[in-house]
Amino acid sequence: MRNEYYEITISTKGYSDMHDLSSHINKFLSEINANNGLLTIIVPGSTAGITTIEYEPGLLKDFPELIEKLIPQKRYHHDSTWGDGNGFSHLRASLLGASISVPVKNGRPILGTWQQVVLVDFDNRPRSRRVVFHYMGN
Amino acid sequence: MRNEYYEITISTKGYSDMHDLSSHINKFLSEINANNGLLTIIVPGSTAGITTIEYEPGLLKDFPELIEKLIPQKRYHHDSTWGDGNGFSHLRASLLGASISVPVKNGRPILGTWQQVVLVDFDNRPRSRRVVFHYMGN
Amino acid sequence: MRNEYYEITISTKGYSDMHDLSSHINKFLSEINANNGLLTIIVPGSTAGITTIEYEPGLLKDFPELIEKLIPQKRYHHDSTWGDGNGFSHLRASLLGASISVPVKNGRPILGTWQQVVLVDFDNRPRSRRVVFHYMGN
Repeated sequence: MRNEYYEITISTKGYSDMHDLSSHINKFLSEINANNGLLTIIVPGSTAGITTIEYEPGLLKDFPELIEKLIPQKRYHHDSTWGDGNGFSHLRASLLGASISVPVKNGRPILGTWQQVVLVDFDNRPRSRRVVFHYMGN
Repeated sequence: MRNEYYEITISTKGYSDMHDLSSHINKFLSEINANNGLLTIIVPGSTAGITTIEYEPGLLKDFPELIEKLIPQKRYHHDSTWGDGNGFSHLRASLLGASISVPVKNGRPILGTWQQVVLVDFDNRPRSRRVVFHYMGN
Repeated sequence: MRNEYYEITISTKGYSDMHDLSSHINKFLSEINANNGLLTIIVPGSTAGITTIEYEPGLLKDFPELIEKLIPQKRYHHDSTWGDGNGFSHLRASLLGASISVPVKNGRPILGTWQQVVLVDFDNRPRSRRVVFHYMGN
């Protein structure tokens, strides 16, 4: 058993900007010659989240629209504290969650064919967003 | 430390159909003689999710009603792409999340007495739904 | 590789009462002399959840207000079953999720500077709430 780490930086636009992490996952698992274990993907920071989705143009519009409906952009108490106007970004991130764990078998993540792990950046401005991949296994 | 896997197929009806996974978890942990480690349960596919809930008749009505209120069945952009009419299923799955990790101690998952791990199938048709259990530990 | 466990009890007030778990995480990782591995935090029970948030006074108001808007306090089917009136607590907990996994590197959890792991107690009364920390690694 060993621990392996991989870190990337993605240029994001904010406002529920979604990025497919599949190629990074595959590259990481391949480079470390992963066999059986557990992959965890986390976004350090409080205005972005990680989930899975079928990464296709329709849902790339639907998901941000849904999030806007559930947690609209408006003035929140957070904005009175900091004045950076991204209270909605924090709330969206907390609801979605910052990490996901995916079992790996024979070097491949156990995911559906149409199921991609995605970063969703909820901030209200472009960011260089750090995403960390961790593998524990053999 | 070792990795163990267990896979089941559940016949689901869709539309937030919920299934208690407790007996499968107990069977898996017992068969592999688990001691201390981490259990991860994942549903491969982009129209179902995993969470925990008190599995009783009232909440089995409440949770689907809540989901219908938050993410109603209507025409989404996804439906224009594929025409299979299950855009709402995808959005519900992405919000809930596809996996959960539960620590295991002395062979037992650390969960509350009234807290059951459940599969929620959000698709708009019956499915044979695969669920994968992964254990890493001793 | 080893498994380590740590358990605390927190006095909570319910109604989306939020508690910063950072000091407990740091104490745990320090006491076990953690190096590289995976930390999982879980709340056993079906009326509380775990997520991350920037723990500051504004968001401590915003998040409960958001949850109240999404899943209002009203009569749910669950309340007919049990009569304890906390159907909303269960639904909120199931949506948020009961656990989170965070990679640990050189003894430190991979989280953002302004990102704290929090317990959110959704019950409708004060509780002595158990939270369990599990570390697998070296």
